[in-house]
Amino acid sequence: MKKVVLAYSGGLDTSFCAVYLSKKLGYEIHAVTVNTGGFSSEEINDIEQRALTLGVHSYTCIDAVKSYYDTCVKYLIYGNVLKNNIYPLSVSAERTIQAKSIADYAKNINADAVAHGSTGAGNDQVRFDVIFNILCPNIEIITPIRDLKLSREAEIEFLKENQVEMNFEKAMYSVNKGLWGTSVGGKETLTSNQYLPETAFPSQLEKSEADKTEVILHFKEGEIFGINETIFTHPSDAIMHLEQLATPFAIGRDIHVGDTIVGIKGRVGFEAAAALIILKAHHLLEKHTLSKFQLNLKSQLADWYGSWLHEGLFLDPALRDIETFFTNTQKTVNGKVIVTLLPYRFILNGIDSENDLMASKFGSYGEMNLGWSGEDVKGYSKIISNSLTIYHQVNEGKI
Amino acid sequence: MKKVVLAYSGGLDTSFCAVYLSKKLGYEIHAVTVNTGGFSSEEINDIEQRALTLGVHSYTCIDAVKSYYDTCVKYLIYGNVLKNNIYPLSVSAERTIQAKSIADYAKNINADAVAHGSTGAGNDQVRFDVIFNILCPNIEIITPIRDLKLSREAEIEFLKENQVEMNFEKAMYSVNKGLWGTSVGGKETLTSNQYLPETAFPSQLEKSEADKTEVILHFKEGEIFGINETIFTHPSDAIMHLEQLATPFAIGRDIHVGDTIVGIKGRVGFEAAAALIILKAHHLLEKHTLSKFQLNLKSQLADWYGSWLHEGLFLDPALRDIETFFTNTQKTVNGKVIVTLLPYRFILNGIDSENDLMASKFGSYGEMNLGWSGEDVKGYSKIISNSLTIYHQVNEGKI
Amino acid sequence: MKKVVLAYSGGLDTSFCAVYLSKKLGYEIHAVTVNTGGFSSEEINDIEQRALTLGVHSYTCIDAVKSYYDTCVKYLIYGNVLKNNIYPLSVSAERTIQAKSIADYAKNINADAVAHGSTGAGNDQVRFDVIFNILCPNIEIITPIRDLKLSREAEIEFLKENQVEMNFEKAMYSVNKGLWGTSVGGKETLTSNQYLPETAFPSQLEKSEADKTEVILHFKEGEIFGINETIFTHPSDAIMHLEQLATPFAIGRDIHVGDTIVGIKGRVGFEAAAALIILKAHHLLEKHTLSKFQLNLKSQLADWYGSWLHEGLFLDPALRDIETFFTNTQKTVNGKVIVTLLPYRFILNGIDSENDLMASKFGSYGEMNLGWSGEDVKGYSKIISNSLTIYHQVNEGKI
Amino acid sequence: MKKVVLAYSGGLDTSFCAVYLSKKLGYEIHAVTVNTGGFSSEEINDIEQRALTLGVHSYTCIDAVKSYYDTCVKYLIYGNVLKNNIYPLSVSAERTIQAKSIADYAKNINADAVAHGSTGAGNDQVRFDVIFNILCPNIEIITPIRDLKLSREAEIEFLKENQVEMNFEKAMYSVNKGLWGTSVGGKETLTSNQYLPETAFPSQLEKSEADKTEVILHFKEGEIFGINETIFTHPSDAIMHLEQLATPFAIGRDIHVGDTIVGIKGRVGFEAAAALIILKAHHLLEKHTLSKFQLNLKSQLADWYGSWLHEGLFLDPALRDIETFFTNTQKTVNGKVIVTLLPYRFILNGIDSENDLMASKFGSYGEMNLGWSGEDVKGYSKIISNSLTIYHQVNEGKI
Repeated sequence: MKKVVLAYSGGLDTSFCAVYLSKKLGYEIHAVTVNTGGFSSEEINDIEQRALTLGVHSYTCIDAVKSYYDTCVKYLIYGNVLKNNIYPLSVSAERTIQAKSIADYAKNINADAVAHGSTGAGNDQVRFDVIFNILCPNIEIITPIRDLKLSREAEIEFLKENQVEMNFEKAMYSVNKGLWGTSVGGKETLTSNQYLPETAFPSQLEKSEADKTEVILHFKEGEIFGINETIFTHPSDAIMHLEQLATPFAIGRDIHVGDTIVGIKGRVGFEAAAALIILKAHHLLEKHTLSKFQLNLKSQLADWYGSWLHEGLFLDPALRDIETFFTNTQKTVNGKVIVTLLPYRFILNGIDSENDLMASKFGSYGEMNLGWSGEDVKGYSKIISNSLTIYHQVNEGKI
Repeated sequence: MKKVVLAYSGGLDTSFCAVYLSKKLGYEIHAVTVNTGGFSSEEINDIEQRALTLGVHSYTCIDAVKSYYDTCVKYLIYGNVLKNNIYPLSVSAERTIQAKSIADYAKNINADAVAHGSTGAGNDQVRFDVIFNILCPNIEIITPIRDLKLSREAEIEFLKENQVEMNFEKAMYSVNKGLWGTSVGGKETLTSNQYLPETAFPSQLEKSEADKTEVILHFKEGEIFGINETIFTHPSDAIMHLEQLATPFAIGRDIHVGDTIVGIKGRVGFEAAAALIILKAHHLLEKHTLSKFQLNLKSQLADWYGSWLHEGLFLDPALRDIETFFTNTQKTVNGKVIVTLLPYRFILNGIDSENDLMASKFGSYGEMNLGWSGEDVKGYSKIISNSLTIYHQVNEGKI
Repeated sequence: MKKVVLAYSGGLDTSFCAVYLSKKLGYEIHAVTVNTGGFSSEEINDIEQRALTLGVHSYTCIDAVKSYYDTCVKYLIYGNVLKNNIYPLSVSAERTIQAKSIADYAKNINADAVAHGSTGAGNDQVRFDVIFNILCPNIEIITPIRDLKLSREAEIEFLKENQVEMNFEKAMYSVNKGLWGTSVGGKETLTSNQYLPETAFPSQLEKSEADKTEVILHFKEGEIFGINETIFTHPSDAIMHLEQLATPFAIGRDIHVGDTIVGIKGRVGFEAAAALIILKAHHLLEKHTLSKFQLNLKSQLADWYGSWLHEGLFLDPALRDIETFFTNTQKTVNGKVIVTLLPYRFILNGIDSENDLMASKFGSYGEMNLGWSGEDVKGYSKIISNSLTIYHQVNEGKI
Repeated sequence: MKKVVLAYSGGLDTSFCAVYLSKKLGYEIHAVTVNTGGFSSEEINDIEQRALTLGVHSYTCIDAVKSYYDTCVKYLIYGNVLKNNIYPLSVSAERTIQAKSIADYAKNINADAVAHGSTGAGNDQVRFDVIFNILCPNIEIITPIRDLKLSREAEIEFLKENQVEMNFEKAMYSVNKGLWGTSVGGKETLTSNQYLPETAFPSQLEKSEADKTEVILHFKEGEIFGINETIFTHPSDAIMHLEQLATPFAIGRDIHVGDTIVGIKGRVGFEAAAALIILKAHHLLEKHTLSKFQLNLKSQLADWYGSWLHEGLFLDPALRDIETFFTNTQKTVNGKVIVTLLPYRFILNGIDSENDLMASKFGSYGEMNLGWSGEDVKGYSKIISNSLTIYHQVNEGKI
């Protein structure tokens, strides 16, 4: 019997795939969930139970939270990566890591095929396809939902025919949760002009202005290792802790509009309190501790890093090179960032760092020049003007 | 008698310059204020009266609001320019335009010198110097404050000795207001770890969550021409109108940390409600109406545009080339953006545009693929994987 | 009867397509050759005769030389575009313009289909597909060679069965000629380690060192309009004239190695004497007449322009924006460039331009500083050092 | 007695400095020559003898050839760095390393001052100043030639007055030699329109077409370690060996036109046979062994690396980050490059590498598609067209 590894999330689409691959295509199903921080252990239990009732040959949950951070989220923080200046790339990053885990698993068990439940209209299909094409080029990729173009109703009917019982009610909003944020899609995100209602967001505001809270984030070589008085053994723990602190303030919500891999424009809502706070806090710390050129180059490389990750090209060796660059810049990114949490927003109050380049002994902006003289600046102004003075004189009256 | 054109703002430093240039250096003073939106007509009257009491030969106020928009702010909007992703470059842009106006004025009246009141510790000195070096290379530049390195007290004493009466009390916060935002400096911005108090900001919060207000911004080829039902004859009028609507919400405040031209890190607070709302609204409209590559290239060029403007290099012909690029991209940036104003923040609800590329007839992201098939995507995934599949196979076990 | 417009070059592949589309698929064939400078009128006559003997319904040759220059080659010169610093993108540019012409023609005659003779292994298939997808999305694209994966022998057999008589002998090297260069493929270019033999290049060396010739190229706003004493009515005439002068020197030959659109690495030989000389001469003139930042930005944009053209994405509106940028930079690119032609190489002796920024009255490099003082440079050095002096002091012993 | 470390080359300017600093300013002179490959041991002996006759307190020659390669030239090769696509940055790189060595030396001996013989009109003054400002901010910088603006004649007179005997005849061309190339300046390089005569170049053509020679360059992780059958213990030895092989062919000559740091345009001739051959050979090997995105990003970063090195900003930490990026890319840059040397030129015949991505088993460009199907390419073309098809349809008739 041929073996297929199915990326299984417990939802309608992947449940359909499990039954379809088994009953119609005759595969031995190895269902795998790669947990990138979105599932509690209770939820994983439920998913496993469902998988087993669907008749899968094996079920495995791979806990990928730490490896997800170590191989991807870390570099998104180093790079202050926000797609289109807005979106922390939560889903793109997760799919990539999930696909890698599935590919490794499939090779390990000598699977004949891998399967994913993507439709033909989104980005995820490409991310899965590409990682599989690269990492296990000799293993067949099966995508029943995309191939059959079935309606939701047809999927349900098929499952019922096959004696599957599950909650077939459609949620008003499709939600995808992970360590680096939660995406939200619904009828408003299919329009260009409507915002998501408060109720669409999984977390709800529980705090008022009066609850405003100051939080200290501790960074060492660009990685968050402590919050207030608490030190964490792994940065992913700090992220999850901050998420708990900040989510009741309804921080980090927005709608991202972007170019999908398939060429259409798409919108997706999200909430990502910890991601947004950490990215902005880290970036502020960098503005104090890196040189102007480091900041400038990092920003350019980060745009590429984010775009390639988004487009499924995470395995390009150029991304490993960028990661090396990023890592080297982080040597001086040490210190604490003081943040105030408020309803729907946060304020970065400032930083304390022994690597802070804004040290008053060299001069204070606009106030005092200790390390140079007014004559020095005149000379500087003169020299940087030279080429343009010449340009304007040579071309006067000519252009 | 030799003529000097003095960039005059009515404050202590430029008042000192007026008296010093006249009494000590024997110049005929032509005081000029270039109004880039920061002064009301009453304030200009006061400035003129003070200048005259200081004994200047002539006083002129140049109303540069519209030309400021036309030659600079317009392109900052086209480019969605935010320095370090935060700061709308309010002061950098103003100084540049002010210096240009002063240079033109000086050439017109055949002045022997131009003077500005900058210290030796800030960015403005370079912006003035460079523009003057380029546009009037044969006119001497005099900078008494920078050259003499006088304390505030010494300046006051000199003025008192010369019978000048004015309010010598120092404001707690130094404020610079213009069409594109208001900067705020004070004792907190001289530290790395303190935020500005509410009272430091010139405008105060007057609205509550209950006052939330929806505003429609109308854009044509990238320029804002209407707000709600009102059409404006010039975009600068729309900006000022929006500022009035949004300022009571205390929107658009932050502290910018950046690399000054003189090489130290500097912090500056600002409030810029209209600038922030327009920049973000315009960018959102672009995300719906421009191609992915247009957005990508615009972003890269905008970084340069902002940096060079910041560093006083506005007259580099490369900026004219960027402006041409920006202008050409704006053909399709038409439509309205729906914004909700709330205390300390705003939400971009969405856009309506006849150039919207997110048109459902071509497919809906994640939902339906009308313009292509699942097979097409498989082929796409295959081809974009090819080079990386080869890379990983060729190098397996070698790196 | 359904109409198909066939991109017809007279070779084996497109001849097969003509017969196959007619005999097997029942189409009315409208054969079109788009001449981008590669065919003499005799050759066009021969191609037309062959097409007619194959039974096409109509044959049209579109003379696209001038429009090819005006819409594409001009900008390749403005941008000094050399793919991978080597290759003038001769073929990429031609295919794009040919596809555009074919698409327009097909829409004009209300064709049901367009056909091209590309295989499944090259870049051209994508360029044709993409342009057709964009410009005539409702017209079917037929690609018999790619679909049938026929061997050369099978094609010949089919043609013989259908009473086609033509020269079926395979040339040792496949050659593609056009205004902007001639590409050469053969058994060596299928290896990584062999260079093309002299005889593989269509033009042969006819000159010796003793024949060395000085040529003056005249540019106005970036366009070549004259060579020595001759003024041309259109720049494409100047290009063809220069090609005649330079080809006997065997100038502009090389092998380009690059990433094909389909993901494999590919090699192609070329000779492009006029293209190389003009690109290098134009670039030299720019080094004298543009600002440093203009040169820098142009170079970055040119890389994108070349890459997108190469990858079939010429119709992205971002390329129109780049063209606007390029055009604006060319205002000062006026003057003459003095070139010496020698066997296999050329020397750029220098330029004469009224926009030359290297004018000695402002100072001579390394010799004399007229426009500034040594003190100015000390000040400049001081200020640009500031940030790095601080960086090294703050971080001494810490990293 | 105060100690000054003088960067001493043995020429007129630095000889003047030695005497002037001693006799006029009363310093104890510590003359240091940093040999970056330009001086033979005989020449160093002569320089030392002259220094001693001038009465210096100590003379030291620092052999920096290997450290020059290790800290700078290596990365110029990794990055294929050619300023303005022409110039290997020979002088910029040397000055930087020389200044670093001088600064270290001065700190070691607790010098009170450092001195260099730069004029006020060139780039070198800034490179020396900046490195000294950063590495030894508390040590005074003295630049007699720049400060005094003496004519050559005045310098000679002063030396004669002080009983210095040396050859005061001016060479027709000023030449600067080092490991990475030799620069040549003279009366032609002060014009825009004249090329250097053959005799201006230090090396002369000694070979004919009949002498053409094939050379194999061996690379490991981006570094050249062998030539033909010879393995070298350090890459700098390979560079010097190749220089000996290639110089008799008069390879690698040209004139570079660029923007000097002081704002004027400047021209400099050079010959750099080994540098040009290695850079082009290395780049070719990379085209076969790196991914498209790696090549693209390397090229962008290399432009920055070259520009900052040129402008004296080598100590910016961003350059260390780029070096890390470059190093990481070189893992697969292994193999040999086959080069033919000919009079005035060389041909890159091809490469052999076990990391070659142009491996025929995945398909041959334009010939055979083994790893994908024609259908795959159709799908690819469809998907990459999607966004542009939408753009053109949405905006048809509107722009």
